[in-house]
Amino acid sequence: MHNPLDYSFNEIKIGLEHYFEVSIDEKLEKDFAKISGDFNPLHMDEQYAKETKFGKRVCHGMLLASFFSRLVGMYLPGKNALYFSQNLNFTGPCFIGDTVIVKGKITGKSEATKMIKIETTIRNNAGELLVDGIAQVLVR
Amino acid sequence: MHNPLDYSFNEIKIGLEHYFEVSIDEKLEKDFAKISGDFNPLHMDEQYAKETKFGKRVCHGMLLASFFSRLVGMYLPGKNALYFSQNLNFTGPCFIGDTVIVKGKITGKSEATKMIKIETTIRNNAGELLVDGIAQVLVR
Repeated sequence: MHNPLDYSFNEIKIGLEHYFEVSIDEKLEKDFAKISGDFNPLHMDEQYAKETKFGKRVCHGMLLASFFSRLVGMYLPGKNALYFSQNLNFTGPCFIGDTVIVKGKITGKSEATKMIKIETTIRNNAGELLVDGIAQVLVR
Repeated sequence: MHNPLDYSFNEIKIGLEHYFEVSIDEKLEKDFAKISGDFNPLHMDEQYAKETKFGKRVCHGMLLASFFSRLVGMYLPGKNALYFSQNLNFTGPCFIGDTVIVKGKITGKSEATKMIKIETTIRNNAGELLVDGIAQVLVR
């Protein structure tokens, strides 16, 4: 789906939610390593990762964070988004093969600045929290 | 360069800096759109972007943020990194063709938690600030 939603500032209500799922596969992980330039062995080297407490390769936290770009640019508010800030807490590991649920919920809006505040979370299929944070987005 | 630096917690000193440059080209921008799923027309549609105040397509802020993954996973501290948190302020637009300077500076460390604090910035060639924030990273 390449056409974003198109909420105006007035249409955004406190409590409005959107979510989508993403399957984390080998290709996505490798493509992100190339784009970011982060080839840390915890992400890339199965043998190395096996000896860490995680027992296997862990996906880049910033790969997960990239899905907040989609959340903001395609859904909340979609077309009229201008990303102002995002904070990120990496709270749990994501592994290749996981399906993650990326979710946003509107928790605030400012008439004066046309800024909306979004509670953003990413969970795995077991419901464990992997990333959370707050996004602030200007609705143009 | 695929081999990360390998700082131990004790080797990390307040004031330590690392930086690198990235050229933002069409391919990087398109690849990031595919990975993130963010096809907002401000990033993807030249005609649309021309009519905004920016006058041309703006790169995804989260593409720039992905370079902080490299900063942490390859340089500060490199191999032993475990990303704990990152906040991001998107303060200026980045355009295709820009070369950006990604920089980190150690501003704090905690013996008790083995956590380091990094002041993170991305600037364009004209020295304009595009993204800033604070990273917190556990040194394993």
